[in-house]
Amino acid sequence: MILLRTWSSWECCGAKVKLNHSPSLPTFLRLRQSLQFLPTQSIQTILCSPRQKISADFIGLLPLLSLIVTSSAGTDHIDLVECSRHDIQVVSVPGDQAKDVADMAVGLLIDVLWKISAADRHVRKWGLSMPQNLSFGSKLKGKIMYHSRNEKPFILYPFYSNVVELAGNSDVLVFCCPLNEQTRHIINREVMLGKDGVIVNVGRGSLIDEKELVWCLMEEEIRDAGLDLFENEPNVPNELFPLDNVVLSPHAASLTSDGFTEVCELAAEALEVFFSSKLPSTQVLDD
Amino acid sequence: MILLRTWSSWECCGAKVKLNHSPSLPTFLRLRQSLQFLPTQSIQTILCSPRQKISADFIGLLPLLSLIVTSSAGTDHIDLVECSRHDIQVVSVPGDQAKDVADMAVGLLIDVLWKISAADRHVRKWGLSMPQNLSFGSKLKGKIMYHSRNEKPFILYPFYSNVVELAGNSDVLVFCCPLNEQTRHIINREVMLGKDGVIVNVGRGSLIDEKELVWCLMEEEIRDAGLDLFENEPNVPNELFPLDNVVLSPHAASLTSDGFTEVCELAAEALEVFFSSKLPSTQVLDD
Repeated sequence: MILLRTWSSWECCGAKVKLNHSPSLPTFLRLRQSLQFLPTQSIQTILCSPRQKISADFIGLLPLLSLIVTSSAGTDHIDLVECSRHDIQVVSVPGDQAKDVADMAVGLLIDVLWKISAADRHVRKWGLSMPQNLSFGSKLKGKIMYHSRNEKPFILYPFYSNVVELAGNSDVLVFCCPLNEQTRHIINREVMLGKDGVIVNVGRGSLIDEKELVWCLMEEEIRDAGLDLFENEPNVPNELFPLDNVVLSPHAASLTSDGFTEVCELAAEALEVFFSSKLPSTQVLDD
Repeated sequence: MILLRTWSSWECCGAKVKLNHSPSLPTFLRLRQSLQFLPTQSIQTILCSPRQKISADFIGLLPLLSLIVTSSAGTDHIDLVECSRHDIQVVSVPGDQAKDVADMAVGLLIDVLWKISAADRHVRKWGLSMPQNLSFGSKLKGKIMYHSRNEKPFILYPFYSNVVELAGNSDVLVFCCPLNEQTRHIINREVMLGKDGVIVNVGRGSLIDEKELVWCLMEEEIRDAGLDLFENEPNVPNELFPLDNVVLSPHAASLTSDGFTEVCELAAEALEVFFSSKLPSTQVLDD
């Protein structure tokens, strides 16, 4: 199999499926090249994170590939159509990540409303002089509403079928939906423009039209944003770095130690089931 | 009267008690000198913030002083014994600050547990490379307990009469008590040492033995701290600036716009009552 994760994080998988450790591979970009040193003809499984794009091109190099395990709830980094065409099984192991991601959304929102990161940055740079441009402790009043593909009968909050209409009635928009062709750039200029509101994104980077978001933050067309994800990771728009009305997080919502242990265990389980009747090929890459 | 606050923040008081605006006074340190340009013999009231120390020495310069209004719940910046000796009334106007301060305590705690400020700093400096030394999303399990001078019958959480014992049984200590001779350095080495815990301080800077705190944070004797206050304000220990296990806030817990408006109104009320039968002296200083 190929392991597209840092080796140390996946020792529990290793213990269960007897993986071997290979020389380090610092970035995924080098993976394509490194495949030439691997027995691509015999690779049956991939264990990957959402940071690695599993494209049709890549899949085409692995004729025996029959299982992809991803340590995430989302599968938008995997070409599912191609997997289906080649009869490759895709297993996502979200575990309890949803709770961690929800916690991060609340954490980013509180940080944004209380300007805690901005205040911390100010103190480290300027000491206790009072930051004139920071408005502390913004409070939220009102109710929770939601938008989704379909109304959920088990959710009692008011449902909006139209996200622009929801945005027009909201002070804070928290985005936590999966990425697909219907949700790509669901946060566009129309949703953001003219709003003195707050956007929190813990879903996927491409839910947001990032160019428009940067413009809106720079022009203060929206008040604040808390972002755990970016459209073209690992790139973060340089224009965001000097801004105090944005909190930046390195795609870390699901990287809690509890959550990660659980994900590793679930991934190991999926691999064990797959390899239960056969020995794993033991090629491992460490990025 | 003397107004020891930024003028613009106190316009609502000004409107009610007809204060005049004097030339700017950047820091309180210059106030003593500036008194020579004021009619100290006729000053009856002071409107101050907790940032200004109203010492016996200072009070001695104002023979007609009979009212001090402070925009805070705490009065530890005012020499109360001296006030009592001179029959000077002290009015504190905490307003709803307690709620804002509690919110800030929770905000600092979440920031510390989720490493949001540290992650934001990391992204601004290093982009989306994964911070190896940050442990995201630490969770708290267990119960709330409290220490106070006396057990409060209306608080249902378990009471500890001894703060060291409480610390020994806690992962997180949130300090929000007033500062007095009993509570000065209540957070000392004995409370902190050997603890892999978190300290949040939204009470007063001198509740903490700051030298010991700095040492404990540098040596990782405690895991994290969220600090809205410092022992020798406006000084913040330089040693804290490079640390990722501390979140620094500029004594801002009560500086919300809602809270501040309320405090201004309460202060104006106190002054109106005082001046209801006499005209105010109109000397105002703007720091």
